Amino acid sequence: MKASQFFISTLKEAPADAEIVSHKLMMRAGMIKKLGAGIYSYMPMGLRVIRKVEAIVREEMNRAGAVELSMPLVQPAELWQETGRWDKMGDEMLRLKDRHERDFALQPTSEEVVTDIARTEIRSYKQLPVNFYQIQIKFRDERRPRFGIMRGREFTMKDGYSFDKDMDGLRASYQNMFDAYVRVFTRFGLNFRAVAADNGAIGGSGSHEFHVIAETGEDAIVYCPTSDYAANMEAAEALAPAGERAAPAQPLVNTPTPGCAKCEAVAELLGIPLTHTVKSIVLAKEREGAAAEIWLLMLRGDHELNEIKASKIVGEYRFATEAEIVATFGTRPGYLGPIGVKGPVRVVADRTVAQMSDFVCGANQEDHHYTGVNWGRDLPEPEVADLRNVVKGDASPDGKGVVDICRGIEVGHVFMLGARYSEAMGATYLDENGKTAPMQMGCYGIGITRILGAAIEQNYDARGIIWPTAIAPFEVVICPVGYDRSEAVRAEADKLYAALRDAGVDVIMDDRGERPGAMFADWELIGVPHRVVVGDRGLKEGKVEYQGRRDTEATQVPLAEVLATVREKMAA
Amino acid sequence: MKASQFFISTLKEAPADAEIVSHKLMMRAGMIKKLGAGIYSYMPMGLRVIRKVEAIVREEMNRAGAVELSMPLVQPAELWQETGRWDKMGDEMLRLKDRHERDFALQPTSEEVVTDIARTEIRSYKQLPVNFYQIQIKFRDERRPRFGIMRGREFTMKDGYSFDKDMDGLRASYQNMFDAYVRVFTRFGLNFRAVAADNGAIGGSGSHEFHVIAETGEDAIVYCPTSDYAANMEAAEALAPAGERAAPAQPLVNTPTPGCAKCEAVAELLGIPLTHTVKSIVLAKEREGAAAEIWLLMLRGDHELNEIKASKIVGEYRFATEAEIVATFGTRPGYLGPIGVKGPVRVVADRTVAQMSDFVCGANQEDHHYTGVNWGRDLPEPEVADLRNVVKGDASPDGKGVVDICRGIEVGHVFMLGARYSEAMGATYLDENGKTAPMQMGCYGIGITRILGAAIEQNYDARGIIWPTAIAPFEVVICPVGYDRSEAVRAEADKLYAALRDAGVDVIMDDRGERPGAMFADWELIGVPHRVVVGDRGLKEGKVEYQGRRDTEATQVPLAEVLATVREKMAA
Repeated sequence: MKASQFFISTLKEAPADAEIVSHKLMMRAGMIKKLGAGIYSYMPMGLRVIRKVEAIVREEMNRAGAVELSMPLVQPAELWQETGRWDKMGDEMLRLKDRHERDFALQPTSEEVVTDIARTEIRSYKQLPVNFYQIQIKFRDERRPRFGIMRGREFTMKDGYSFDKDMDGLRASYQNMFDAYVRVFTRFGLNFRAVAADNGAIGGSGSHEFHVIAETGEDAIVYCPTSDYAANMEAAEALAPAGERAAPAQPLVNTPTPGCAKCEAVAELLGIPLTHTVKSIVLAKEREGAAAEIWLLMLRGDHELNEIKASKIVGEYRFATEAEIVATFGTRPGYLGPIGVKGPVRVVADRTVAQMSDFVCGANQEDHHYTGVNWGRDLPEPEVADLRNVVKGDASPDGKGVVDICRGIEVGHVFMLGARYSEAMGATYLDENGKTAPMQMGCYGIGITRILGAAIEQNYDARGIIWPTAIAPFEVVICPVGYDRSEAVRAEADKLYAALRDAGVDVIMDDRGERPGAMFADWELIGVPHRVVVGDRGLKEGKVEYQGRRDTEATQVPLAEVLATVREKMAA
Repeated sequence: MKASQFFISTLKEAPADAEIVSHKLMMRAGMIKKLGAGIYSYMPMGLRVIRKVEAIVREEMNRAGAVELSMPLVQPAELWQETGRWDKMGDEMLRLKDRHERDFALQPTSEEVVTDIARTEIRSYKQLPVNFYQIQIKFRDERRPRFGIMRGREFTMKDGYSFDKDMDGLRASYQNMFDAYVRVFTRFGLNFRAVAADNGAIGGSGSHEFHVIAETGEDAIVYCPTSDYAANMEAAEALAPAGERAAPAQPLVNTPTPGCAKCEAVAELLGIPLTHTVKSIVLAKEREGAAAEIWLLMLRGDHELNEIKASKIVGEYRFATEAEIVATFGTRPGYLGPIGVKGPVRVVADRTVAQMSDFVCGANQEDHHYTGVNWGRDLPEPEVADLRNVVKGDASPDGKGVVDICRGIEVGHVFMLGARYSEAMGATYLDENGKTAPMQMGCYGIGITRILGAAIEQNYDARGIIWPTAIAPFEVVICPVGYDRSEAVRAEADKLYAALRDAGVDVIMDDRGERPGAMFADWELIGVPHRVVVGDRGLKEGKVEYQGRRDTEATQVPLAEVLATVREKMAA
């Protein structure tokens, strides 16, 4: 490609509404153009990256035996009603009516349509397993679209769906897709991590997220630097502290703590570490035809509640109202505790709290806390559960060290659905014995357009984007200095361009006649990973300059060795 | 690809709602699956064809210097309001509201968005010309979707838009795209014709449609078998008959024609050819603050009004109401004519009528016609215009023969837009002299998904589809007879499969173990153009069978020559 035949449009400044670095750089590099909130055109430079991402995904999906199809964007409400998701999806699913006033949705995902295909196309166990995928536009009407294409409304996703006879088959299909995803993200050239995630209904290890590691990531990832353990914060298990609980050493004392409604204030007032305090979190669980059931969850003062873990213990819950709290505990929030409760309440202690002795907690009396609280002595042994977010330094659940926490951007997700959709929609098959059984499903997503943002968040510097070679808009840029003035430069640049192109290198030559400074700045901003500069000075010695986008200096390369050098650098 | 790793699903019978052959065959071959009226999933077999069509289009667009981008499907109403099309587009444009109650449209086309891109990205004449294209989903909410994907609601289109400094530039861009379209349709391997079309505002030769020729086509195409003239019916010019008008020979007579309100009945009653009669068509053109202007168009009894031609003469019109007709002519429709009109009326005669002598037309009196009517003698010489559809045997407008009429399916359209959108939306640039001027635009469309239907309408037989090699889902199918039973067959089929695949042939091997009859029927229905059958009998002589999809008989081919034979047949 010659630059004069392409469309290049760079900006010195990013628009004011670009908040994060990837959004700013994509706007400045002319890769995307905003049409509305969360709705972008992909300009030629950005579309090239998307096409490369798509090609890698497609190759690895095909290699894994998945079969590509394409499902409609506009989907009838009836299908979504069969699974109940027409009502459950909320405002994020964009709904519309056609000219005959029939209801449709713009697909946010395609479980219903693919299950409809499976239930009509698959009749016998002989046709299983099947694994369908599509690379298709999705629409999610985010309340607050932001971060450019990282949280857009219209975006492109690879979504895949496997159908198996049974759970063993599903597990094999899941592992197959997991392995394919590892190959995909490895080929992208990104630093990523597959992390265990929570999958609600099915449990176990039936869900993994793929995160691109970046300091600016929205998600916290828990990992063990000395093992391959990794999980997202929702799913990461916090083990019970090692060893036995210490024996009680202090008496139970109702201590005045005026105005100290927070653990931090209590600890400061009493001159004790925050790790000696326990906070009380009150949840309510609705009951049919009765007042809500009240739960008291107890966490160490410095720990945070993990709401997903809480919901696994309590079920569907909400935080209790102040009225419910006063009715149950006889006092306002800030001074609550498990001792001397007025109403019925279920007490659950976090694993760490269950191991504590002589701790401090609310006394169910305004401006008072108990000190020297001990399980078994001052109150019954509690129900114990993992209720908290892990923190840096916690023991790794695999027993192989302690965990650390990093930030990630979720770009992929593999998920065991089981029979949730196939049962709701009657997607069954006849097994070897002529018996009807529901298919076991998995679903697998990669955020194609989001990959661009994530790759940039991980790979940029002050001058611009630094694409990994595999997904760069162009692999190599030839920058001739004086293309419009020097006969020699023009001739050698043209020759080099033809040689690289004919060797299958995805090369662009900047024949626009820009001055070197502006030309270099453009390509550093756009982030082409390999640059060859052709200039009169070097040509006198039969040389050109090679510089990788991360290199601090250029290297002189004899003309005859340029192709070999570029190939070597591209493979590195 | 091995069939066992792909998804093949054929049907003996087409569903009852499939009306035309391409719809029936695509359903039976498992290429598409209906989700709702005019909304289809593309199943793996169909998607392969789409991908091949897309690849050819993309290659030729890139070769022609067009640059690919991708514009959003969901487009804000504001842009469509700028050009007035938000109101003009009618129910065919699907509108929707997001969660914030803002108006959007699902793109039926993208002139507004691309013009918005141009007006912000292009500032100087140095950046012109530019030619953008996308291959993207479109949605048109057809009142009555039908014919499968031929007139669907959700479909894929290549839409391209060129921007030029001036009309000379536009003409060059237009020709460039015209040439690219010829290459595209030639590469598809389809029998097609580029036909001149009407482009309303700009006139001249600024619009061509590309039609796939098929008896089942919806459109009539006028062409000259002895020259390269071709136009669609709307645009095909009907010349005035050659020679001078004959001198009057008959007197003007008001003749009773009781009950004969149609030319056919009058001709039969009077014993004259239909070509001696003239029919009167009354149009009304609304006027601000006044009664509608009444027009009388006169056509020969056997000719049909061309409404596009009429609108060029009259402007925006409607057919007159019976009340308007009675008020103007003093009688009911069926007996109208240009002689003795009561009210003001503009008379326009079709070119053929203007050349007629001694003709018959209505007498503006119930149950009466005039015979022996002559221009200049009985009524003033009329205003003359080309008002009718051409018919087979008319003189070709290029003077090189007479025209014939065939049927076609419109699959492409190139169109000079001029400054219509750029002026409405302020898409201007600074010219060489620093003066602001609007860009001149062209637009260019190819119905990607429609190509599939059109190709099938042109290429099928009783057994199924016959794909041209270039867009076939697979180029070659290997059908091993007894793959599951014969060691020799399996070994040779596997070897042949690997050899063809490694040679870059897009081959599928049917390893499903189906019986020969069912296997052959499947592939003939699916329409793979080249088939190689491997069987024990042939292998004993070191041979396999080759049969092209249109061949009536198979040919024996020595194993060593299979690749060469297949290549030769593919190139034919």
